[in-house]
Amino acid sequence: MSEILLSSRNLAFELYEVLDAEALTRRERFAEHNRETFEAAIATARGIAEALFAPHNRKHDEHEPQYVDGAAQLIPEVKPAVDAFLAAGFLNATRDFEAGGMQLPNLLSQACFAHFQAANAATTSYPFLTMGAANLIESFGSPEQKRRFLQPMIEGRCFGTMALTEPHAGSSLADIRTRAEPAADGSYRIRGNKIFISAGDHPLSENIVHMVLAKLPDAPPGVKGISLFIVPKHLVNDDGSLGPRNDVTLAGLFHKMGWRGTTSTALNFGDNGQCVGYLVGQPHQGLAYMFQMMNEARIGVGMGAVMLGYAGYLYSLDYARQRPQGRRPDGKDPASPQVAIVEHADVRRMLLTQKAYVEGAFDLGLYAARLFDDTQTLDTEEQRAQALQLLDLLTPIVKSWPSEFCLKANELAIQILGGHGYTREYPVEQYYRDNRLNPIHEGTHGIQSLDLLGRKVSMNGGAALKQLVKLIQDCCQRAAEYDSLSALRQPLEQLLARLSAVTLALLGDLLAGKVNQGLANSALYLKVFGHLVIGWRWLEQAIRAEQGLALLQQGGGNAADADFYRGKLRAARYFLTWEVPACHHELALLEARDDCCLGMRDTWF
Amino acid sequence: MSEILLSSRNLAFELYEVLDAEALTRRERFAEHNRETFEAAIATARGIAEALFAPHNRKHDEHEPQYVDGAAQLIPEVKPAVDAFLAAGFLNATRDFEAGGMQLPNLLSQACFAHFQAANAATTSYPFLTMGAANLIESFGSPEQKRRFLQPMIEGRCFGTMALTEPHAGSSLADIRTRAEPAADGSYRIRGNKIFISAGDHPLSENIVHMVLAKLPDAPPGVKGISLFIVPKHLVNDDGSLGPRNDVTLAGLFHKMGWRGTTSTALNFGDNGQCVGYLVGQPHQGLAYMFQMMNEARIGVGMGAVMLGYAGYLYSLDYARQRPQGRRPDGKDPASPQVAIVEHADVRRMLLTQKAYVEGAFDLGLYAARLFDDTQTLDTEEQRAQALQLLDLLTPIVKSWPSEFCLKANELAIQILGGHGYTREYPVEQYYRDNRLNPIHEGTHGIQSLDLLGRKVSMNGGAALKQLVKLIQDCCQRAAEYDSLSALRQPLEQLLARLSAVTLALLGDLLAGKVNQGLANSALYLKVFGHLVIGWRWLEQAIRAEQGLALLQQGGGNAADADFYRGKLRAARYFLTWEVPACHHELALLEARDDCCLGMRDTWF
Repeated sequence: MSEILLSSRNLAFELYEVLDAEALTRRERFAEHNRETFEAAIATARGIAEALFAPHNRKHDEHEPQYVDGAAQLIPEVKPAVDAFLAAGFLNATRDFEAGGMQLPNLLSQACFAHFQAANAATTSYPFLTMGAANLIESFGSPEQKRRFLQPMIEGRCFGTMALTEPHAGSSLADIRTRAEPAADGSYRIRGNKIFISAGDHPLSENIVHMVLAKLPDAPPGVKGISLFIVPKHLVNDDGSLGPRNDVTLAGLFHKMGWRGTTSTALNFGDNGQCVGYLVGQPHQGLAYMFQMMNEARIGVGMGAVMLGYAGYLYSLDYARQRPQGRRPDGKDPASPQVAIVEHADVRRMLLTQKAYVEGAFDLGLYAARLFDDTQTLDTEEQRAQALQLLDLLTPIVKSWPSEFCLKANELAIQILGGHGYTREYPVEQYYRDNRLNPIHEGTHGIQSLDLLGRKVSMNGGAALKQLVKLIQDCCQRAAEYDSLSALRQPLEQLLARLSAVTLALLGDLLAGKVNQGLANSALYLKVFGHLVIGWRWLEQAIRAEQGLALLQQGGGNAADADFYRGKLRAARYFLTWEVPACHHELALLEARDDCCLGMRDTWF
Repeated sequence: MSEILLSSRNLAFELYEVLDAEALTRRERFAEHNRETFEAAIATARGIAEALFAPHNRKHDEHEPQYVDGAAQLIPEVKPAVDAFLAAGFLNATRDFEAGGMQLPNLLSQACFAHFQAANAATTSYPFLTMGAANLIESFGSPEQKRRFLQPMIEGRCFGTMALTEPHAGSSLADIRTRAEPAADGSYRIRGNKIFISAGDHPLSENIVHMVLAKLPDAPPGVKGISLFIVPKHLVNDDGSLGPRNDVTLAGLFHKMGWRGTTSTALNFGDNGQCVGYLVGQPHQGLAYMFQMMNEARIGVGMGAVMLGYAGYLYSLDYARQRPQGRRPDGKDPASPQVAIVEHADVRRMLLTQKAYVEGAFDLGLYAARLFDDTQTLDTEEQRAQALQLLDLLTPIVKSWPSEFCLKANELAIQILGGHGYTREYPVEQYYRDNRLNPIHEGTHGIQSLDLLGRKVSMNGGAALKQLVKLIQDCCQRAAEYDSLSALRQPLEQLLARLSAVTLALLGDLLAGKVNQGLANSALYLKVFGHLVIGWRWLEQAIRAEQGLALLQQGGGNAADADFYRGKLRAARYFLTWEVPACHHELALLEARDDCCLGMRDTWF
């Protein structure tokens, strides 16, 4: 098998044919970059991912972290892998040159990171969470906090976590009970318990900074009373050296179905009343700060789901090409040789479905990453704000769609391998187990659906939605120039029209105060909206494929690409004609405000 | 939680309100039975399943069988559980009183067995495979084979396996390479390798009989040259005592994602040229014999999938009732108490979906079990043959539908538990891992779809299909008497009409020799056909629920049942209005002979 993580050809297609990554190099921030520097970064990522991350993916699963004397122990392969990641600069890929970063566009940083996510989801979590925590401090921390905590994170000496969830509250952050009392020295004393804190303890760094949500004594009730605190595992002295242990204890580890290599911890803060925390930014603004970081984290989770799907797709494709079994329906002579199972129509269906899911979601994830760059580097504030609105709207899709459909892809990869796929002798069952986490963490599917319908589509008077509709209409207009794409374009246009009408109707319910009714079927809405978005991304890819084929006809391009483009057109056809039209049934239920589930009573179960 | 395996009320509904189990007691074979004997058997099964099977389900998963000195070792809890199962007579539940059986209808035997399947899929496999092997010998073995091998199986001293799959052939049995050479004494010498042989070695019985598919020297090529052999682990002396070890060796164990407690073995036959086997029945008839047993085995696999779904449904329902979290959209005051998550519309959706899947499939599995009784005990040969035709037609659905949709139910159960559901501290993730096997073994999903469309719907000039259509039409007619059911009946009628037309068209393709085209989308056909069948079973349940409610209105019945019946009507509504109409998109693809997947080329991936 030539490629195990992702298809380089497809990545190049995304970066240079679909998303025009080179245009970014004309922006001042990225002026030092060019296609060669991009490709060098990608090659480095692929090399480290293949050499140091992929090889211990199975071992990490079989030997999950152990709780020993109050600390979590990992297999020895993790640290060299993470160290190589750090040494190559990927932790600070997007940071300024002056701050020791590569000043890469987020698009490229995500493209590099995708290799690690495909190679080893669990090991990748440690730097992933550190990047999230570091960005929080960078955005909202004081200069002193940056000096004391961010700098060692940038240097890779200190790692980070996000500590939100509590045992009795789960998704309901309004109900967290962790408290922060002001101390005489301006710091706070934290007291509370957090669960499911990924990377909450490990021996990979000399220190760990927990970004903790807690409530001040005067906090208003609910989400408006949540503040954000830095709570280090070890205190840090004024000179930057490591101080004594803080009063944060590892209460235990959770044992998961998959993603086993990442410690999932229960942490106790302030069992002895001595847990020091530092308020980040203003009191009671903690959730707002977290949400500003959410886009990046949720793109990351979505891309993680994509990459597990991608790795499974490539593995099952390779298997289907190698594995002889049975014959085609029109060639049943048992004396004839068996054919490779890729020849069977139903295996092709399972491969094409996987391709449509993973390459569609991969495109969306990178599109979102590029949009993030737009929020930072477009010329005017208005343009940047517009980009941010669109990104806010798309975020629940970027996070949830791959979590559902790339998991489905993993299910199909197992099926292609048959009995072998069900054994731990092959990698696909682990991808499936690992990926099952993604619809749960960083906001469950249900939470995403409420975020989309209850918040995002109506924000700023629906401005973001209007932007998206315009983008899709524009795409359809460009597609209309290709007769060959009309059968792909029409289902998307029909879906867009009907979903737009449904959206208005549901928002009308919400405005009229019928919130229970309006939000009852938000899961259906999320699914259809996601298919609209992925359908749009596939139509964009199809246009580029047609352009690529046209160039080949004119004698340009690389003749070997013809098959690649035809595969793109076929996958686009699959998604737009096999998947998109099926959404009309869900739309009918939404139109009818069907109350089948809402009206079900507890006592009837 | 009052019930952890299945709902007794629902089982009683199935047995006595839907499937009229008491009518069976008017047949001569079951004349000794009555509702009390049925209930006694069920209570015994539930007691043993809860006391001896359920408690080690997790331990069995965590401590999978070990290969030690050429043998498989199990955790010590398995043997007492299986011994209790044997002692209570469940291995021979359907056998004649004279042969030491309970002479129960298959319907009741399945109802009892369902409890074990819900409690511990892995441990249940050992008696399950033994029952299958014993039935094979009973149906096709010689009197001498029955005396020597069947009798110790009935007595629980000898267990059984089904040894079909080979490393290079998988689903393609035409290509098996295991050979059987005639020996001077009338027996055969077997040589070959089999993989994925469940229960292929264990310390639960003094002997194991492998039912092995192999080819004789003069065998015609392909499936017409397959013969069936008894290959015991230990030879059996003429007086019935245990002889020396046969030349069958345990080459190794497979390590699976789930269902870990069942040994999955690689077996070598005849490494030393001394593997003795005994031909069952006629030469070259092995696959035909196996297929005659397939209905029972596939009902068993389907019911196994149902029961894993059922156990997950009950667990997540109980959790949703206990777990407070968040508030309804119209009551966001953070000072108000959190509500149980069963109050959230999307959680209700996930519970109602599970209920519709597991109770729909449970009904179908028991319907098939009762149909099996009809094949054995209806008055005339013609009636029995008719019942067998219908059962043959339904078997691919009974096996595959629960394997797909009760796995989906398990996915939803995890989601309801959120982060907890993803940990091994709760049982639902194991159900999900266990259930993922079911779409693979005993004929993959793809194989089932080819069996249905390529063989079953057209057999005997479509006689079975006509029977099924008539049954569904009759059900719709009875449903038409209830105005309240018209919204449930109409989608089923529409699906039936359109699927009937599609079936004729596809069979036309096959008759015209366009087999690749006709079978290309068989997976879609299987899904739609399955939804038709489950939709029909839900409409039957809805009629019974309406009858139950009518009786209550007249002052009869048990007033506490009103909620139960309303829940049935709601789940029927969910399935018939949320799931069934979605099939029209797949029907459109089938009508169009859409070649999107068939036309995809290997080089385009």
